[in-house]
Amino acid sequence: MKKNLLVAQSGGPTAVINASLSGVIKEALEREEIGEVYGAKYGVEGVFREDFINLRDTVLEKKRSIFPVESMDITNLSPLAEEICQEERDAEMTPDRMQSLAFFSRLATTPASALGSCRRKLQNPEEDPGDFDTIFHIFKKWNIGYFLYIGGNDSMDTAWKLSLYFQNKGEDIRVIGVPKTIDNDLYGIDHCPGYASSIKYISSCLLELEQECMAYDKNYVMIVEMMGRNAGWLTAAAALSEERGSIPYLIYVEENTFSKEKFLQDVNEMLEKHPQIMVAVSEGVKDEEGRFLYSYEKEEGEKDAFGHTIAGGTGAVLEGFLQEAADSEEGKYTVIKEKNIKTRAIEFNLLQRCASHCLSKTDVLEAFSLGKKAVELALSGESGKMVSLERINGMRGEYKVNFLSVPLSFVANKEKKLPKEWISENGHSLEGECLDYLRPLIRGECSAEYIDGLPAYIRLF
Amino acid sequence: MKKNLLVAQSGGPTAVINASLSGVIKEALEREEIGEVYGAKYGVEGVFREDFINLRDTVLEKKRSIFPVESMDITNLSPLAEEICQEERDAEMTPDRMQSLAFFSRLATTPASALGSCRRKLQNPEEDPGDFDTIFHIFKKWNIGYFLYIGGNDSMDTAWKLSLYFQNKGEDIRVIGVPKTIDNDLYGIDHCPGYASSIKYISSCLLELEQECMAYDKNYVMIVEMMGRNAGWLTAAAALSEERGSIPYLIYVEENTFSKEKFLQDVNEMLEKHPQIMVAVSEGVKDEEGRFLYSYEKEEGEKDAFGHTIAGGTGAVLEGFLQEAADSEEGKYTVIKEKNIKTRAIEFNLLQRCASHCLSKTDVLEAFSLGKKAVELALSGESGKMVSLERINGMRGEYKVNFLSVPLSFVANKEKKLPKEWISENGHSLEGECLDYLRPLIRGECSAEYIDGLPAYIRLF
Repeated sequence: MKKNLLVAQSGGPTAVINASLSGVIKEALEREEIGEVYGAKYGVEGVFREDFINLRDTVLEKKRSIFPVESMDITNLSPLAEEICQEERDAEMTPDRMQSLAFFSRLATTPASALGSCRRKLQNPEEDPGDFDTIFHIFKKWNIGYFLYIGGNDSMDTAWKLSLYFQNKGEDIRVIGVPKTIDNDLYGIDHCPGYASSIKYISSCLLELEQECMAYDKNYVMIVEMMGRNAGWLTAAAALSEERGSIPYLIYVEENTFSKEKFLQDVNEMLEKHPQIMVAVSEGVKDEEGRFLYSYEKEEGEKDAFGHTIAGGTGAVLEGFLQEAADSEEGKYTVIKEKNIKTRAIEFNLLQRCASHCLSKTDVLEAFSLGKKAVELALSGESGKMVSLERINGMRGEYKVNFLSVPLSFVANKEKKLPKEWISENGHSLEGECLDYLRPLIRGECSAEYIDGLPAYIRLF
Repeated sequence: MKKNLLVAQSGGPTAVINASLSGVIKEALEREEIGEVYGAKYGVEGVFREDFINLRDTVLEKKRSIFPVESMDITNLSPLAEEICQEERDAEMTPDRMQSLAFFSRLATTPASALGSCRRKLQNPEEDPGDFDTIFHIFKKWNIGYFLYIGGNDSMDTAWKLSLYFQNKGEDIRVIGVPKTIDNDLYGIDHCPGYASSIKYISSCLLELEQECMAYDKNYVMIVEMMGRNAGWLTAAAALSEERGSIPYLIYVEENTFSKEKFLQDVNEMLEKHPQIMVAVSEGVKDEEGRFLYSYEKEEGEKDAFGHTIAGGTGAVLEGFLQEAADSEEGKYTVIKEKNIKTRAIEFNLLQRCASHCLSKTDVLEAFSLGKKAVELALSGESGKMVSLERINGMRGEYKVNFLSVPLSFVANKEKKLPKEWISENGHSLEGECLDYLRPLIRGECSAEYIDGLPAYIRLF
């Protein structure tokens, strides 16, 4: 009897997590070795609740209702759909195939999690096998032979523990991790799907904000805050903008200790030569005493009117430092004082992880392919692995990736930081191989499909 | 002797203000009646400083350096360039024309002000003719016969006063206003260039944020704040998203008094039926006593750590109301209390007026055409007019606009509000002709030209 496949999504949204899902579903539905293809709603939460949807039925139903075969114009395939079916180029294009490609490419450019996500991390099975036993019984009941989990560090940990548990039990239930995270902090992969679209969005927006900054004949320090609690990967996008833009940047990442004194000196020095400056800061930078900057307002007893902390806020704290220096009686930061600077703190907030109107095509296609590869890997008999990307041809040559797999144990519970050697000695710029690493990732434009002026998405339930 | 033309930009940035500038320059350089074509840097500020650039020279130099003729591929015209040259369709495409179109279409999709902007409003000439006399002498010195001012309400006021001054002096110096403002609050025009791209950006982002909202199996109230100090035009974009999205919206605009009680009741009621809600609020809503909501934190003596007010903040105040209701001992808003809601306040900040990666093609083309029309209008002998758009074929038919002109006196110093009849009786949704008005404006996708993964812009100095 054929085994069934179960796929689920976990962790924070990205703009291309559904591209991987799309690849998984498309491949799984095409493989005869697989019985039913199920999706768990809201990650492992849905597994515990046995809240599964039959994806064969769902896809069929959605395809019919959203893309009626009779209205398919086989001469008008979207660019993304064309790339998605590149491997099948020689096959004849029929309305049926067209419908299928239209569906999978629209799902691929739907941001966040079409199956729903969760943030539940499982305990160690040695300490508490309860959850694992429950999952095992559910998998048996539903005849699951392949479990594909799309997620970040914590999800790779869950996948790893599950694979070990099944292995120790001598059960052939194969568990494969599919990486995603805008944070780009996974080991065992050149870059994480989701990251490239986020930095394309961020660096595009920074170039737009530069134009804002230069619009008036004024001295302006614009402070932009990026996500990333523990690593400066997203903030590194500012290096791409600086290379292509017109205004100098001060870039502060978590990998360096943040010093208020040094920040004010940096701004002061740069303002001597430039009327406008962009400051790019990671939300999670810490000072010499290890305190998060965003906790300053709170720790100093100054809460907002309702006593709650506002998410982020690091940029606003930096803006405060500048105002303080500008207003201070002391003459230390003379340029800041004299230049009568305008300041503004901007947060990219949630949009930096779901901006389907500004996707990296490289990212979408890689995420899609990783989904397909995960199904292949499971069918080839592997378990406890994560599908991965390896960059080939060196950093300076043409950009190409190999698809491969790495043991989940290499990946789980670790956080990859920005390489120290990328951070300049001055502490506020990025250098070395940083730009060579970033540049190819943002290549290729791709956005969600727009219908009558707005993006169209697919929800699976 | 031929008279010269001077163009300047004023007021806040939009994503398409340079599309109008592009239309002005292209038309002006092609008209033999015009001598030199000058651009003033930073609006009237640049006029007072005689800080002019010769646009014929600048355009020539930029064209040569950015788009070398020898590298122009005449078979590969960008879609925008193709539309820009629609009127000249029959002309033969040569590398020279191609270079020119490449330049003007790239300038058209550069956000903010390529000539620089200012916020200076002139006094009444009767009270203080000094500024006007100065401008007059400068215009004489530079042989300016045509002055085109691209801007919003205040800039139309400046243009109007200037045109009256010249008229009273019996001088044939023609002043034409070219409208722009994301605020859409100008009278005498169906909609303002810049507005359409802003609402396309906002409503696209709202649909993306909906996907974020639905990613977890949680009760979620997401609060999004839009610009607009005095009118709810930008917030109206939420009606477009609601029509196409999956989550219900509560929409609060300046045209209605904001009541905290009613807001909490609205949320409470809606949460009974829906796990997730989007709240769209204009930054400038006021309470029953006429107080801006964003001033609450300040007025209650709770400043941030540095004693300065953060721009916007209306969304954060609404978030505070919800937290207060959720934590309160009183059992008034039972659903808010029981449902353990997650809340998040998001600001679109400056990106809503400069998002060149998500432009409305309708907007770009209209803005470009208005620039051209302004030159034609000045040459036809008119002064004291603003070029304008009139929607024809009724609200429900095919969308088409007429280009026309209106007296600047109709436009200056007034603010057009959202029609009262568009606001539903429930006070939190938009109805009637609102959607018919908005829908056509966001049609057509167009973004800045991307090169190697990032947008490419043109600065004129």
